[in-house]
Parts: sequence; structure tokens; C-alpha cells
Amino acid sequence: MKAFVMKEIGQVGFVDKAVPRPGARDAVVRTTSALICTSDSHTVRGGIGPREDLTLGHEAVGVVHEVGDEVRDFQPGDRVLVGAITPDWGSSAAQNGHPSQSGEPLGGFKFANRKDGVFAEYFHVNDADANLARIPAEIPDEAAVYCADMLSTGFAGAEKGNIPIGGTVVVIAQGPVGLMATVGARLRGAGLVIGVESVPNRQELARTYGADEIVDFTKEDVLERVQELTGGDGADTAVEALGADATFQTAVKITKPGGTISNIGYFGEGEFVRIPRVEWGVGMAEKTIATALCPGGRLRMERLLRVLRTNRVDPTPMTTHKFRFDEMERAFEVSDQKIEDTIKVLVTF
Amino acid sequence: MKAFVMKEIGQVGFVDKAVPRPGARDAVVRTTSALICTSDSHTVRGGIGPREDLTLGHEAVGVVHEVGDEVRDFQPGDRVLVGAITPDWGSSAAQNGHPSQSGEPLGGFKFANRKDGVFAEYFHVNDADANLARIPAEIPDEAAVYCADMLSTGFAGAEKGNIPIGGTVVVIAQGPVGLMATVGARLRGAGLVIGVESVPNRQELARTYGADEIVDFTKEDVLERVQELTGGDGADTAVEALGADATFQTAVKITKPGGTISNIGYFGEGEFVRIPRVEWGVGMAEKTIATALCPGGRLRMERLLRVLRTNRVDPTPMTTHKFRFDEMERAFEVSDQKIEDTIKVLVTF
Amino acid sequence: MKAFVMKEIGQVGFVDKAVPRPGARDAVVRTTSALICTSDSHTVRGGIGPREDLTLGHEAVGVVHEVGDEVRDFQPGDRVLVGAITPDWGSSAAQNGHPSQSGEPLGGFKFANRKDGVFAEYFHVNDADANLARIPAEIPDEAAVYCADMLSTGFAGAEKGNIPIGGTVVVIAQGPVGLMATVGARLRGAGLVIGVESVPNRQELARTYGADEIVDFTKEDVLERVQELTGGDGADTAVEALGADATFQTAVKITKPGGTISNIGYFGEGEFVRIPRVEWGVGMAEKTIATALCPGGRLRMERLLRVLRTNRVDPTPMTTHKFRFDEMERAFEVSDQKIEDTIKVLVTF
Amino acid sequence: MKAFVMKEIGQVGFVDKAVPRPGARDAVVRTTSALICTSDSHTVRGGIGPREDLTLGHEAVGVVHEVGDEVRDFQPGDRVLVGAITPDWGSSAAQNGHPSQSGEPLGGFKFANRKDGVFAEYFHVNDADANLARIPAEIPDEAAVYCADMLSTGFAGAEKGNIPIGGTVVVIAQGPVGLMATVGARLRGAGLVIGVESVPNRQELARTYGADEIVDFTKEDVLERVQELTGGDGADTAVEALGADATFQTAVKITKPGGTISNIGYFGEGEFVRIPRVEWGVGMAEKTIATALCPGGRLRMERLLRVLRTNRVDPTPMTTHKFRFDEMERAFEVSDQKIEDTIKVLVTF
Repeated sequence: MKAFVMKEIGQVGFVDKAVPRPGARDAVVRTTSALICTSDSHTVRGGIGPREDLTLGHEAVGVVHEVGDEVRDFQPGDRVLVGAITPDWGSSAAQNGHPSQSGEPLGGFKFANRKDGVFAEYFHVNDADANLARIPAEIPDEAAVYCADMLSTGFAGAEKGNIPIGGTVVVIAQGPVGLMATVGARLRGAGLVIGVESVPNRQELARTYGADEIVDFTKEDVLERVQELTGGDGADTAVEALGADATFQTAVKITKPGGTISNIGYFGEGEFVRIPRVEWGVGMAEKTIATALCPGGRLRMERLLRVLRTNRVDPTPMTTHKFRFDEMERAFEVSDQKIEDTIKVLVTF
Repeated sequence: MKAFVMKEIGQVGFVDKAVPRPGARDAVVRTTSALICTSDSHTVRGGIGPREDLTLGHEAVGVVHEVGDEVRDFQPGDRVLVGAITPDWGSSAAQNGHPSQSGEPLGGFKFANRKDGVFAEYFHVNDADANLARIPAEIPDEAAVYCADMLSTGFAGAEKGNIPIGGTVVVIAQGPVGLMATVGARLRGAGLVIGVESVPNRQELARTYGADEIVDFTKEDVLERVQELTGGDGADTAVEALGADATFQTAVKITKPGGTISNIGYFGEGEFVRIPRVEWGVGMAEKTIATALCPGGRLRMERLLRVLRTNRVDPTPMTTHKFRFDEMERAFEVSDQKIEDTIKVLVTF
Repeated sequence: MKAFVMKEIGQVGFVDKAVPRPGARDAVVRTTSALICTSDSHTVRGGIGPREDLTLGHEAVGVVHEVGDEVRDFQPGDRVLVGAITPDWGSSAAQNGHPSQSGEPLGGFKFANRKDGVFAEYFHVNDADANLARIPAEIPDEAAVYCADMLSTGFAGAEKGNIPIGGTVVVIAQGPVGLMATVGARLRGAGLVIGVESVPNRQELARTYGADEIVDFTKEDVLERVQELTGGDGADTAVEALGADATFQTAVKITKPGGTISNIGYFGEGEFVRIPRVEWGVGMAEKTIATALCPGGRLRMERLLRVLRTNRVDPTPMTTHKFRFDEMERAFEVSDQKIEDTIKVLVTF
Repeated sequence: MKAFVMKEIGQVGFVDKAVPRPGARDAVVRTTSALICTSDSHTVRGGIGPREDLTLGHEAVGVVHEVGDEVRDFQPGDRVLVGAITPDWGSSAAQNGHPSQSGEPLGGFKFANRKDGVFAEYFHVNDADANLARIPAEIPDEAAVYCADMLSTGFAGAEKGNIPIGGTVVVIAQGPVGLMATVGARLRGAGLVIGVESVPNRQELARTYGADEIVDFTKEDVLERVQELTGGDGADTAVEALGADATFQTAVKITKPGGTISNIGYFGEGEFVRIPRVEWGVGMAEKTIATALCPGGRLRMERLLRVLRTNRVDPTPMTTHKFRFDEMERAFEVSDQKIEDTIKVLVTF
């Protein structure tokens, strides 16, 4: 089969690979749609170290091709979604309530990291009964595929943010994860959602997805503006959806005492991420810093699909570009370079 | 001033009373709008014991008339909302996170219970800085007054229900509190909200407020229908918004193991409320039974007003009837008898 | 091999069975020590319905005899503890944070219920890597075996009770689970632990395990005495460790508004368990009713073994009787009839 | 009356002041015992900015001297404890569950900061009914006074640390707050408590207070040793009780994915506190960073006194030095310079 891989650091392309085979509890899925993620670019640039001919991609839907002997709930032909994170549910971390950390830090992140990813005609899924979810007929692939990572991660930013009904939330960066954090803030009942963003099409989508206010950090001081919008109190919750030292500092500063900084950004650079000491209340202002890696698993995916089915959100407007799998090289370039204000690139198989 | 009172058990009417005066931290508010609540009827029927010439009512907005010497944040002329529950914030229960229970069980419930209520030209508010909230100019009285009890109690039903994003929620009874619990379930991110109700105008409002499905218990078996709608799993959360032994039992039955029964109904009758033993998993199915009394206080009211201001919900369609204060006797009768499918009766001053 | 079984409702005895074989992820353990539980008696009396030649018992330690091909962390010869509850960790309930409910209500309870139990020379353990725990050399079998159910269930009563440091806790019934709930209350930092019990040797053990006060319900009114001991406030937490309608009602009554009733009792009788309406605050006193089934799994067992290893508690004084496996019939009778103030009966193999 | 004050930055001494008078809800307390805190030294060095003749001290017990007209529960002659933090319970932050942040960040910290402290013959207490606690006869002043800050802050470190029963906890620095965090970790049920400390008398006290292991950072690598003691997993919880960039980094590193860093240290220096990026899991290892300022209030103090009354801990071995109030200059010097391995200096009046 054809697979789109990271050949080495900095280089991508197609290679031929054998169709994978499932273990007793596993499944192999024939890919139908996939999304390219910024973290695919991180990986190619060496973010997780060197890899050789590693198939990229972790956001996909497809049709079950083959299942292992002990798989009970799925069979070939089932149309399925699989989370970007596929935990080992028996692991100590999962038993501790942190399945995404199974085995080791970020251990549930297997696709395009610990094993081949989903940018291939077929891909392998561990523990199929626990990590696959059947896609209801009324949900198109293009919508369902957003659950794998974008909805799951974005919503987690809101969930970890401890948002009270009527609370004030700032979501820093309105890329696809930030946009879904904006939706998530609305889904948790925030009374005021402030999106921080400078790119016009992202600002516009943020409004569509429920941001009450947009702060353009290139034109306004974010701290000042948030203070103004919150009556001087600061926000109940700041979701950091970028992963940069400067925006993390902003997140700490704009949060009120007793509030929560919820991080879903990937910090790719530097030895440290810095907390501004005074605005953190010299360590005593009861500002909690929470973090999440994309939650995976069948139950999570089923709940996200339910959110689509009952029309709480339509993620498809985030698709700015579509390509066929054989155009993958161009597709990856568009995503990687953010050509033409790319938000999300869909690949169909 | 004129006050509409419970003269004795079973009898209501107007009496003349002196305008109240505030203590050092208190305020006196001139009433502009009020709502009649089912619990006013409970009280008149003797639900909280005998009372003599007790002013009824606990849901009101108005204009500050006078404040005590130590009130810092409010002054005469301010347009304000006051929660139905006005806690003593320094009490042991409040320090324990349960301000509605301050002093004694349900101790924050003072209006028309421990002191005169709001169906009068003026009413008294304890601890004004902590229990009043300024109403933003763009929110009309008729909307703001719903925050006092209906939004606060209904939303609490959802909040205590531990609803996951994408979870399944059943709200039993779509009276005004149940309708706001339906809104609350949506505000917490429920992926499927099922309203149980038989009265047509309530069913219709329930749909407007976000119920995805309506189950008419006079025509269908609630347990069967919920099982069907949840794929046999049972609901993550059942909100009991009626307060009856039979519906409480239903709430326990329709909840999945590990789920939550969230009660916001007032149980007015009988020695016991009964848990069905087997469906409760013989005490071991990890179904939690939570309860709430309407949360009060300035912060709560400010957050609810924010929810109105950013148009998350418009409560005014619940107003089926409007009266002037001098028509209070008829207004009370309409509410009490639920004449013409009454949902909520607004009284203007 | 020899197995001690429930032949039919009301009848127990030895039968010969084949030594079980493990599936790919399973293990078979050679039993070395086991404890008899009150729920074994419930089962024999028909509590979970009819069974034929079902091996009894769910509390055991032993030595790994054989493992399946996919078991990575255990091998024959390892000395191991297995929880009474052996969840399917990939199940929807486990992903939802309730592994004991995996598959169906109480679904993690497999031994002597859904499959043969541990009163046999060998027993089968599903998902060995996730459900076994290695026993440190310094912990004797007789102590370790108490972790399987007694410590895990008793501690869960405290954990679900939401005990604040310095809080007041009443543990109703000081059988072996109640005694461990008493220890659990101390481990969570309770400032006052009140044990309710009438049997002298249980009262004495309760004091040893950290009860500050004992209330003998045959001599004193429990509600009055708890009010007295808590300065009229009621308890922060009541742990119901018996499973009877009357004690459940007491638990609701003695809990303060905002407090928690934590049930770990098995309710074996009646159509209903009844909540006293008025003392429950007519459904609005914010008294939460939580329940738990014994938590299982490797991480839980490892944590409980750590508690033994660092001498937080010694469970062995609960062993009032010891028998060899070939004396099982007498052992069961002693446990079942609570002969000679039996607390716990240990069986060695 | 005599008061021991910070005359200006860097200078302390006695001055004469008028005995304070209570407002309507306040009390004035005649001091009987007080403790000197490291933060008194911070303050004198300019940590909270310049002050002129500000009375120092925030840990004290005494006898009620005078109460305001609206105080109901206390009267002159009552022997009382007052928390170091005396919140405004009606404030927005308190209503939000963060009373220590009332009014502004760290706003509940009034003594020796926003008003005169307790190193005087008399001191003023706001909102007496909510902030005082009666001391039971059997608890001596010298023990009770430790509740004001040391127990409350130390225990908060454990409480915010989300410690599971049987979990592994590292407490960094075994000064008086760290020692009480060690006790707190035991009170929450930690199965392994590791104290990091190099000073011999603190190491010894740490063992007395329940540390299972001591790591001397001058002789061992803390990260390596914690990995070894936790079987390579890292700790469930790290309590940072020092307040230094280096130890904060250690706290992040030694915590397992999904674990909690609980900070109770005061960070007095530098623009930033730095999170080590990789060991924080590039922002995705679900390591939560929580912080607390000493919880205050009557309920908290009553619970801490209950802990003393039932002999869960004896704080008095931390008293390494005792002085009379007229020896305050020498007392302060001993505390400030940590002369002769000072842990805590008690002052009697």
C-alpha cells in the first residue's frame, strides 16, 4: 500500500509498505478521510527526534478492514472513527485517570510517533473495542474526522479550565484547536468568551464558533483589554492554545486569583516555560495551571460524535483546503506553510 | 406600603406594612418586577408551617431605595437583582462551600420564610454588597428577574449533575425550573437532552430551550424510551425537577452506573423518598444522588446576568401571564391553579 | 483440583474441577491464602440468584502458576495479590472512571459471580497485567489478602465521603469493612471518627483502628449522641457500612447540610431503600449520597500494599479464626454463623 | 500599648500605639502567645514594599478583650485562635471558593500587611464571628497558635496536592510549613512520604512527623532518589514548601504524568518562576500546578483545633526557642537569622 512518510528529519514523501495485520484485540482500518495537523509539521522538523520512513498522520476515519480474534464489537465494513490518542486502558496511568499518559509521558500518542500513522491506505489500531467508535450514518466523514483530535483537544482545554456557568474565558490563538476550545468554552456555559487572534479568517471563524469578543494582539494590549472586558477582575479561565512562552505568560497574567490556566498548546522550544512571578501571586494567588493531551478512547469519541449528531457544532468550515491522497505532497506543503490562510487541510482516499 | 401576604395557612391578601429600614450592611429595595413561584403556593398551603401576615415572594428586581452605613458598592437609584437565597457569607456552612445552608438547613432561604418576602412595594436585603447585583442597562427587568431563582436553580440542577461534554441528560418535568435545567444541560455541553413532560406548551418550550427529545410519560414508558435513546446505556445524568417519589424513582432507574441523579425538586409530601434498591445497584452501582438549593449571592447573580447579556438564553417566553401588583390576588390564583397552562406569572410594580 | 462451591442455593461443599487455563492476557494463580466474606454468605443464600457448582470466594493471594502469551509483567512464581473486583479496563464504564461497573452494573465483580471464585487450589484472573499486583517480600500473605476487598472497600467509603482534614465522620457498623472505613477516615484526616457498634470485640478493634468515640446503638440514640459529639452540627460524613434501610436512614439524619452519606453496604432486601424526607432537607439540604463498589486493579492494589508496607495499618488483628483449606466447610460455617464473635476467617492452602 | 513594628524597610523595634477598637462586627483580642514567621522577615526586608511603623506578626492566640455590637458568638474573656488570613467572606473571591484572595490577590492576608499585625498587646480582628475560633480548654496556647498559619498552610499543601490513599508524596523543604505539609500528607493517606531536607534537626522532626524517607539534597540527586523510591514512576504529588526557582523545577521533574505540583512556598525573587519544558511533558503530561495561600476562617480553625484535640499531631516540638514579648528584638533576630537551627520562635505575653 502507499504511505506518506517522514523519510528523515525534514523530508517527506510516499513509500510502499505492507498492509498491517491486527493482533488479537486490534483492528486494521482502510482510511477514507484524514486531516493534517500542525504537529505533523513539528514531527517532520524533528520535534520528537529522528524517525525513518515513519508514516505520518493521526487524524483519520475509515472502514474496518480486518479485526483480531478477540475483537467483539467491530467487524469489517464498519465505518469508524479512531482517536488520535489510543491508550492502553489497563496501564497504570489509565487506571489513575490519565489514559493519554499510558506507559510513559504522552504514551497514548502512538500514531506517527511510536508506530505508523494514518496517512496510508490502511492503518493499525490497538485495542479496537476500546479505541474505535462507530460513526452514525448521518455524520459525514469530513465532520467525523475532526473528532479525532481537534474537538477532543479543544474541548479538553475548556473542560480542564474549570469554567463556571456564566464565567469569563479567554482562548489564546484561534487555530483549529483554539477554535474548538472556543466551542468548548461555549459548551461548558461560559458567559463571555474572548478569542485572541490576529488573522482575519480565524477571527471570523472564532465569531462563528461563539467568541463574544475578539482581541487582536497586534493592535491591542491583551491584558488591558481583558481587564476592561471583565470589569477589572481578570478571567475565570485562560486557555492557552498556542504553546509559546509569551502567550503562556499572558495566560497567567489575565487570569483572576483562583482562576485556571488550561494549557493545550504544544511547547516545542526552549529549556523553560516561564511563569511571571508577581502576576502568579508570588505562588499564592491560587491560579491553577492545568494541562491536557488530547483525550482518546471509544467513549470520548462516541460523546464527540453525539455532539455532531445533535448539531452542537459543525467543524467543517475549518476545512480551507481539500486534496486527494495522491496529492499528499502538495497538501502537506499547504498545511506546513499555512499557504493562503490555511486552517485545516482535508485529505480524501 | 402595600404587601401581599400569607395571612394564615390557606389565606392570602394585602396588608399595610411599614417600609423596612436597613441595618449597617443591608439595603432596602423598591420592587419593580417580581415572579410568582410554585413554592409560594407550597408556603401558603402550610409547607413550612404556620405564618401570620408574612409577605410572600422571593423572586424580584428593583431599585435601591436605602442602604446601611457600611454598604460600599451600592447606592440609592441602582437597578438591582437579588437572589432568592441571600446567604450569611460568614456562616460555617458558607465557609464549607454551602452558602444556601447558612445557619441551618436551607438557612439562606429567608424571603417569605424567615423574614418578609418581595411581594411588597419595598423589601429588605441582608448583606447588600454580597447579595445584590447591578443589572446591566441592556437587560430588561422582566428577563433579569428570572435569574433570582429560575436560572439559578435550574442551572444548579445541571451543574450538580456532573455532565460530561457530549453526555446524555434527562430532565424530568419541564416546569420553569425544569426548563432552565434543560438550558443548563445545554450550557454544560450535553450531547443529548431528553425532556420528560406531558403538557403541550411546556413540551414546546422545552424544544425551544434545547431539548433534543421529548418523552411524554402519559404515552410512553420513560425508562424504556431513555434506554432506547441512550443505546441501552442509561443516562449520564438525570435531573429531577419535580420533587415526587415516583419521578425520583424514575430518575434513579434511568441513570447509568456511575451516573448522577441531581435533585432540584422540592419534596413536599410523605415520610420518605424511596430509592429503588435493585436499580440503585443494591447500593453499589456508583450512582450519586446530589441535591441543591438555589445558589444565591452577588457573584452568582452577576454570572447569570452575563449569560443573559450575551444572549445564551432568553427566559421571557416562560412568562405566560402578566399582572400589575394591585392585581396580585388574581395573579396568585392564576399561578396557584395553573390556569390556562400557566408557566410563570410576572408582576410589575 | 479441589474447589469449594455453592452447589445450589443454600448448599455448599467441595467438588473436583479442572485447573483453569489462561487466555492470552490472563493468568492462573495457585491460591495460598483467602478470606471468607459476608457476601459469600449472601451469594449462597441466593442474593445473586441461583448458581450451580460455582466456586465461592473473591479475596485471595497466591503464586502465579501460568500466564497467557501477551502477559508482560508477571511470570510463574510471582507472589501476587488480586483485587476482588477485576475490571475490563477498556470498557465504557472504566473509560468513564467507574471500572467496577464495567460491562454492566457491578460488572467488575466476577469472582464467585460471573465466573469461579478463589476458594480453589487455582483460580483464573482476567487481564493479568492490569489486575495483579506483586506482593513485596516484607508483607505476609495474611496481611496482603486483606487488600483485595476489606481495605479497598473500607477505604473507598472514606474516599467517597469527601472528608475534610479535621472533619467529623461517623462509620456505621464496625464489621471488617466498617473497621477499614474507620482506618480510611483516619487516613483522609478526619478530626473525629465515631464508630457505631454494639459487639464488644468490634468496639475494641474500632478503637484500635482509630475511632475516637464508640456509640452503642443498643444503649444510646445515635442521632442524639452524634449531635452532642459534633456540637449540634451533624457529621461531615456518614459512612454506611452495613446495608440496611434503618441504618441508611440514620446516616442521612446524622449528616450535616452539605455533608456526604457514603454507602459501602450491600442492600440485600426490600424493594426500596428509604431516604427520610425532612432530614434530607426536602431534597434541598445538599446532602450527597455517594456509593462505591470495591475498587480493583493493579494500581489500587499497589497503593494498598504500600499502605501496609509503610505500616499505616495492620489488618491481621481482624483475623479471629484460621483454617486449612480442607477444613473449609467448618470455616464457612464459622463465618456464616458469626460463631464466637467472628470478624474475619482466614483460610490457608 | 506596646507594639513590635517594622519602622521602615530593614528596621524593627517597639513603639507605643493606642489599643484598637472594634467595628460593629469586629473584635479586639489581648494577645497571649504568638509565633514569628519567615514571612515577617520577608516583610521587613521589603518583600511587600515600604511600611512605616507597621505592627508585625500574623500568628497569635489570645483572649477576647472587646467585641462590636453585632458580634453574636464571642464575648470578652473567650480564649480564641485567629487565622493568619482573615477573609472578607462576602467578597466575590470568597463566593468563588477562594476566600484568601478576597478583594484582591492575597487580599485575605491583612495582618502585618494591610493593617497592624499581632505582635502587640492587643490586635484587631475583622468579622469576629467568621474569623475567630474558641480554643477548647484541653489545648494549650502554645499548641493552638500553630493552627493560625503553620498547620493551615502546611495541610493546604497536602490538600491541594490531590493525594490518593497510598499515593507517593515528596515534600520539598522541611521548615515549619514543610513539616506540617508532611503531617498533612500523612493525614490525607499518603503511602510514602519523602521529605527533602539537609538540616539535621529538621530531618529528625520530619521523621517524627511521618516522613518515611529523607532525601538530603546536599548528598543525593533528588530526582534520581525519588525515581528509585517510587519504582521509576515519579511521585503522585510534590509539595513545594520553599519557594525557589530551583526547587520548583525539581517539583515538576519528580512528579509523574497526571500528578500534581502543590505550591505553598512564597516566591520572593526574580521576574519568573521557570517550568522545565521537557519534564513538564511539553505542556501535555497532565501535571497540574496548584497553589494555595493559607486558608483562614472560623471553620478552618475549628477543624484544625479538632485535629489537635484528638491528638493527630503535636506541633509544639517545632518550638526551638521561647521569649517573652519584652525580649521581642532578640526573638526576632533569632528567627530572622535562624540562629542555632531555629525552627520556630514562640513569644509569650
